Amino acid sequence: MPGQRSDARRNYARILEVAEAEVADRGTEASLEQIARTAGVGSATVRRHFPTRQALLEAVFHERIQTLAEQARVGSAAKDSRAALLSWMHDLLAYAVSARGLADALAYEPPVEDAAPDSCAAVLEAAGTPLLRRAIDDGAVRSDFTFRDLITLTAGIALATEHEATPLTHANHLLQLTIQGVGPAPID
Amino acid sequence: MPGQRSDARRNYARILEVAEAEVADRGTEASLEQIARTAGVGSATVRRHFPTRQALLEAVFHERIQTLAEQARVGSAAKDSRAALLSWMHDLLAYAVSARGLADALAYEPPVEDAAPDSCAAVLEAAGTPLLRRAIDDGAVRSDFTFRDLITLTAGIALATEHEATPLTHANHLLQLTIQGVGPAPID
Repeated sequence: MPGQRSDARRNYARILEVAEAEVADRGTEASLEQIARTAGVGSATVRRHFPTRQALLEAVFHERIQTLAEQARVGSAAKDSRAALLSWMHDLLAYAVSARGLADALAYEPPVEDAAPDSCAAVLEAAGTPLLRRAIDDGAVRSDFTFRDLITLTAGIALATEHEATPLTHANHLLQLTIQGVGPAPID
Repeated sequence: MPGQRSDARRNYARILEVAEAEVADRGTEASLEQIARTAGVGSATVRRHFPTRQALLEAVFHERIQTLAEQARVGSAAKDSRAALLSWMHDLLAYAVSARGLADALAYEPPVEDAAPDSCAAVLEAAGTPLLRRAIDDGAVRSDFTFRDLITLTAGIALATEHEATPLTHANHLLQLTIQGVGPAPID
C-alpha cells in the first residue's frame, strides 16, 4: 500500500532528523525513548527503523562519512601521499570533534572484519586504506601504522578533548604531536 | 561520640570498597544509588561522604594516583630524563587502561588551575611536571609538549581502546606511535 509506505518514509525522515539533534546533543547516550517522544511516534516505530543504537548512529553519520570516504579516494591519487594522508587525518579529526558521538561510534565498533559492509568503520576503512597504503609504500609513514591505529588515535583525541572549551584547537595540536612524535629520540 | 564516629568510618570504608567495584565495572557512569544499595546505606549517607561523582572518583583513584606521583618524583632524579618520562607515561597509561573511569576522570577534569589541590589531575601535575620539564630542558622532548597534552593523549588512548579485547597491547602500541611519530617527515 503506497499510503503506508509514504507514511513510513515520512516517519523515517522525521525520526532521523530528531535523532541527529539528539546525537549531536548527547552523543552515544542518545535516548531512543526521547527520540520517539520528540518525533511524536512510538518507541516500537523507532526500533523498527533502527533496531540497535549502533544502527541509529550509523544512519546519523552516514552522509558525513560518505564525504570523508570521497575525500580519501581523491587523496589517494594526490602526488604527495604523506601530505594527502595527514590532511585527511585532520579532516577526520575535525569531524569527530564536531559530531559528538562519532568518536564513540568509531572507537566502540568491532574490528572491521566483523562489521556490516556499510558501517562507518567499514566505509572509512575501504576508502582510507589505499591512502595510508600509498604513504607507507612511498616510505613517508612507518609501516607498522595501521588503519585501525589511525582511527583509534583520532577517536581517542576527540574523546579526550570533548569537554574542553575549544576542543578543536587542542585536538589539532595533539594530532600534530602524534604525527611528529614528542621529540628527538636518543641515538641508539 | 566515638561510637558514631567509628560507625561513620566503617560506613566510609564500606562505601569506598563498593564504589571501587562499581567504578571498575561501570567507569564514570557508576550509579551513586546502586552503590548505596549494595553498601546497605541510604543515598543521603553516600552523598554526605561523596557530595559529587567527581569526589567519589577521586577517592577511588587516590591510592594509585599517589603511587604514580611517587614514581614521577623518583623519575625526576633519574639520569636519562627522556627514558624516565617515557617509562612514566607507560605506567600512567597502564593504570588508565586497567582502571575504567580514570581516563574519563582525567579527560573530564577542568584545567588544573581550577581543580582542588588534591584532585587526581592536580596531584599528577604537581609530580609529573618536573619530570617533563627536565626532559624538555635536556632537549630530549619538544618544548611545546605540555603536561596537559601528556594527560589528554594518555586518557584518549585509554578511552579509545577500552572496548577492545586486549586493550593494553593496542594502547601501548599507540603510545609508542605517539612518542615516535607516524614516520619520517618530508625535508622542509
